[in-house]
Amino acid sequence: MPLTAFTNVFAGNPLDRSSYARSKPDWVAEKLADPASLALVIWNGKPMVEKREGGGSQIAYVRAAMAGELSDGAERLLFMGLWKETAVFALDLEGAADPADGPLEGLGRFEDLRMVALDLPGPDAAILATAKAMFEWRRRHRFCAVCGHASEASEGGWKRVCPSCKAEHFPRTDPVVIMLPTRGETCLLGRQAAWPKGTYSALAGFLEPGESIEEACAREIWEESGLRTASVRYHSTQPWPYPSSLMIGLIAEVEDGEATPDQTELEEVRWFTREEARTLVNGGLPGARAPGGLAIAHQLIKAWAEA
Amino acid sequence: MPLTAFTNVFAGNPLDRSSYARSKPDWVAEKLADPASLALVIWNGKPMVEKREGGGSQIAYVRAAMAGELSDGAERLLFMGLWKETAVFALDLEGAADPADGPLEGLGRFEDLRMVALDLPGPDAAILATAKAMFEWRRRHRFCAVCGHASEASEGGWKRVCPSCKAEHFPRTDPVVIMLPTRGETCLLGRQAAWPKGTYSALAGFLEPGESIEEACAREIWEESGLRTASVRYHSTQPWPYPSSLMIGLIAEVEDGEATPDQTELEEVRWFTREEARTLVNGGLPGARAPGGLAIAHQLIKAWAEA
Repeated sequence: MPLTAFTNVFAGNPLDRSSYARSKPDWVAEKLADPASLALVIWNGKPMVEKREGGGSQIAYVRAAMAGELSDGAERLLFMGLWKETAVFALDLEGAADPADGPLEGLGRFEDLRMVALDLPGPDAAILATAKAMFEWRRRHRFCAVCGHASEASEGGWKRVCPSCKAEHFPRTDPVVIMLPTRGETCLLGRQAAWPKGTYSALAGFLEPGESIEEACAREIWEESGLRTASVRYHSTQPWPYPSSLMIGLIAEVEDGEATPDQTELEEVRWFTREEARTLVNGGLPGARAPGGLAIAHQLIKAWAEA
Repeated sequence: MPLTAFTNVFAGNPLDRSSYARSKPDWVAEKLADPASLALVIWNGKPMVEKREGGGSQIAYVRAAMAGELSDGAERLLFMGLWKETAVFALDLEGAADPADGPLEGLGRFEDLRMVALDLPGPDAAILATAKAMFEWRRRHRFCAVCGHASEASEGGWKRVCPSCKAEHFPRTDPVVIMLPTRGETCLLGRQAAWPKGTYSALAGFLEPGESIEEACAREIWEESGLRTASVRYHSTQPWPYPSSLMIGLIAEVEDGEATPDQTELEEVRWFTREEARTLVNGGLPGARAPGGLAIAHQLIKAWAEA
């Protein structure tokens, strides 16, 4: 895949993460004070955005120094990387009173990332996905899992260290396999009871310890539809900050046999011809619909249907 | 990739994980007491193995009921899945006195998994990799990362629950990208100062939040060699229980430019022609050697060199 083209929303973060610089607290502090440095803001999981000239939205950056003042120490700050020469930080206002009524009044509005993602330039969506994933990690990892002591942010926010047992903790990313089972000129989609009526999507599940991507894919297809997998083809990945997933998109050829939904995760599985899948993904199949372009499932169905 | 052929050691666990059964404590308890059920044993990270008829080693299973007696509660037990009709458990004797001098005397010997892996049947190596990864996770996650309270094993060992804040914790798997950079008919390998003299291998690093596999690959190549990536091709994955990695193997075409080692992780990078790489991976290149067949790096170099 050419690296200039990103199939999936939330991929394509253009910042140079400059990970070598994270371990230099003086350099990070200097950049935070630098009037040229910027910061994005996230409040209770919602990024601050603003109107973009010509339509749509974009990240509403504030001066990094202002973020530094609002941060009340390292726990709410994250060094995101460099955009050319400009250092970019992220500020987490989790639990604060509505900042749009306070110090950030008039500087932007806080929106659900999933709602606003397709309205943002791709690079902005990817930068926000990175920041959100990091803050979700932090929110669920304030304590050392080894000994139970409160841990402390380190390395510009990319590491947590336990002052008691000295254990180091790094951001967690959970690999999820998400796959389109195919058999010749048909593909299988499933629907969960909780989804809006008529919605069908790819099958998916968390990869477990001791599994290769291909094994996890075959297990999920077996568990959810009772079908055996013959072969697995990698398509693409999507960072998915809800809270910390890496969606690994696959297209899997399955063996003969009757597909039966497991009834735990899926209430129905349904075969679609290639033409039906093409119509489905373009929104035109009566009584059935697929996830929108935000979801890697959409890209998987589209890639197979239009191949 | 056909699912009957596993490129990488530690992939190919043949057990039916029967994840639906994990949430049925009565069923799990019944299987543990069943005289037909088996258990493997791991002591301080080392699995118990025995001689295999015809040469090599194999897992030295004990009766599951015996493992139940030695387990002292759910914290040391893991339900691994079903082998046809037989339930298989794993017992973690972390911290115990040498069990080969005690209750398990004469039943097997404890070996470092990496040392014995190539001496085991592939399915045995994969089963042990799963158990080891799970116990490594447990060892580092006895406390709730949300609130610091001691957590408790649940769902046959596949989940931990915090009795205080009710947070649920699932096994952690860390995606690592490991890649062979190529440029036309040459490939680039690196060496770390700590490695045995003359050893060269693929480049690698942890995937970070907000990255697709392709972006993580390009970042690692940039950080470690100063080269830009043009395209990335997925090869295979390997579960790597040290302690909890998923090695995602990639072959990446890089752009023109001089390759320079970062000096932090790598002391040298070196180009090999396809013929040199072929000789290297077969052990015949004077003054240079590649990792052995246990490592996915070996498979990556071999796949490219012999293509």
